[in-house]
Amino acid sequence: MTSDRIFLDHGSGGRLSNELIAETMLPAFNNEILSQMEDGASLDVAGCRLAFSTDSYVVDPIFFPGGNIGDLAVHGTVNDVAMCGANPLFLSAGMIIEAGFAREDLRRIVESMAEAAENAGVQIVTGDTKVVAPGVADKIFINTAGIGLIPEGVHISASRARPGDQIIVSGPIAEHGMAVLIQREGLDFQSPLKTDSAPLNRLVNRMLAAYSDIHVLRDPTRGGVGTALNEIASQAGVGIRIREEYLPIKKSVAAVCELLGFDPLYVANEGRLIAFVDNTHAESVVSAMRQEPLGKEAEIIGEVVAEHSGKVVMETAIGGERIIDMLTGEQLPRIC
Amino acid sequence: MTSDRIFLDHGSGGRLSNELIAETMLPAFNNEILSQMEDGASLDVAGCRLAFSTDSYVVDPIFFPGGNIGDLAVHGTVNDVAMCGANPLFLSAGMIIEAGFAREDLRRIVESMAEAAENAGVQIVTGDTKVVAPGVADKIFINTAGIGLIPEGVHISASRARPGDQIIVSGPIAEHGMAVLIQREGLDFQSPLKTDSAPLNRLVNRMLAAYSDIHVLRDPTRGGVGTALNEIASQAGVGIRIREEYLPIKKSVAAVCELLGFDPLYVANEGRLIAFVDNTHAESVVSAMRQEPLGKEAEIIGEVVAEHSGKVVMETAIGGERIIDMLTGEQLPRIC
Repeated sequence: MTSDRIFLDHGSGGRLSNELIAETMLPAFNNEILSQMEDGASLDVAGCRLAFSTDSYVVDPIFFPGGNIGDLAVHGTVNDVAMCGANPLFLSAGMIIEAGFAREDLRRIVESMAEAAENAGVQIVTGDTKVVAPGVADKIFINTAGIGLIPEGVHISASRARPGDQIIVSGPIAEHGMAVLIQREGLDFQSPLKTDSAPLNRLVNRMLAAYSDIHVLRDPTRGGVGTALNEIASQAGVGIRIREEYLPIKKSVAAVCELLGFDPLYVANEGRLIAFVDNTHAESVVSAMRQEPLGKEAEIIGEVVAEHSGKVVMETAIGGERIIDMLTGEQLPRIC
Repeated sequence: MTSDRIFLDHGSGGRLSNELIAETMLPAFNNEILSQMEDGASLDVAGCRLAFSTDSYVVDPIFFPGGNIGDLAVHGTVNDVAMCGANPLFLSAGMIIEAGFAREDLRRIVESMAEAAENAGVQIVTGDTKVVAPGVADKIFINTAGIGLIPEGVHISASRARPGDQIIVSGPIAEHGMAVLIQREGLDFQSPLKTDSAPLNRLVNRMLAAYSDIHVLRDPTRGGVGTALNEIASQAGVGIRIREEYLPIKKSVAAVCELLGFDPLYVANEGRLIAFVDNTHAESVVSAMRQEPLGKEAEIIGEVVAEHSGKVVMETAIGGERIIDMLTGEQLPRIC
């Protein structure tokens, strides 16, 4: 059933987002690169293997514990480029600002972008600033696009997931989404949550140095780990089994998720990645990840199987099995 | 005097836009490439000379005579990449959609983007779709970023304007801005104006084939020809003299500008370019331009002089002289 209107759910990053893109964008733009539906495009330009990706950021509130829309916009695109196995080099920044916005807030956001870019080793080299009347946009929206260089011998693609691949998560999940939600709703908890927003390119470098033939990289942002695993299962035509007890999650985050009724598998992350590595090399990749601050809690959470193609099954902590579907509604609009 | 708030004028493309960028963005992002303030960045990536540019489109109304926000978003970024002397190859597309937007309108816009991309010879290879609640954005905003390849021997930069350079405009000015304004205000004129929105990359190729050492290319969008010339004069530290009688403008457009009180020198164009070429080669570049549909009304409108550095002076049709300043207010918000 398709409605004749766009709903919030179409921006969830879950099932309806995928349907909208598959129905409207892919047939019109009609090219193989876009149709691969990776986090970024892998391009050949005059013999250079480039990665190219973009994201618009509409997060609300624009300042939240551990970050703001500015560093989020840098990390998000750096990470999408890194998920192609590339070294991110250059970013663009396009801002849409609501008239009346405080210059001081803009300055803080721009400074956070600059700091995040420096920290990630990328340069913001081109940009655009639009200002619209009050009420036409909400405070500030930022788009970033990024270019990176893919090293020789690196071929990352969701389509390369193979039965036997071990599935690695780089650290505890669901922190970004819950931190933003708590700030937005003005909730007050004893142990304040912070976003996990961070640049993953150094972690990816370390992983590729340990073993260059990693099959899949994906950062589970909107839609969370559950949706990202479904996308990969579907794109590769394989089944995925994960074990709930292996899923890294901080107690404080799990408690808040339970209290507010969120499944952490569908909550957005902005500084975590999922990697698929063949079973001979997965342990050595995990060891390498644990040398990096952003990978020190990396865990193998499951594996690719030949059965139940396109489906993700979780062995629950109490010994049962549960199908993990793609996110079907919009839990948390404007989370990034 | 700087206020503590962002105003519509900061998005005009004129003086306040330049001040905001110079005060807030350049010091924070602090790199030589951005500080050149060209239409796009020229980058060296593993020996490839790339051009990279971005723009966000917030035009109101989203459908206007001769185009819509979709093809405008493709042409605008294709042109910014072409203004680096590059062949545009790949675009990203980031959409921010207001919940409740009609799917049919989205389909029309996406199809226009696809058609414009095919017509310009570029591929839309990566994208992002956000949906926000009603009232958080106005209908749809689109960001595009673009990558192109700069041929060997081509070095385009505003800083290369030299006394003696002839200044070429590729066709009649002020059409896009007036077409959008008339549609927005629901005005009704006998001879309907259409946007000039078009991809300029083939015209640039033709120009560079005629003479590869073109000094400056700029597409006079927000802020119009008057602002673009001021930016170039200021960046190169040269003076500019133009002659009003040489400025190509359609009678219908001139009449509407006069009636509504707009100076065509400050009205946005989306399918016109300005080129600076040394006086030995300017005529042959103009001849080459006239072979292309988008350049058949190309004219030399003036020249670079050693006097009045940073200033643009126009000899008026009645024989006087007038200083053409940078656009100082916002004439037409949301024109692109």
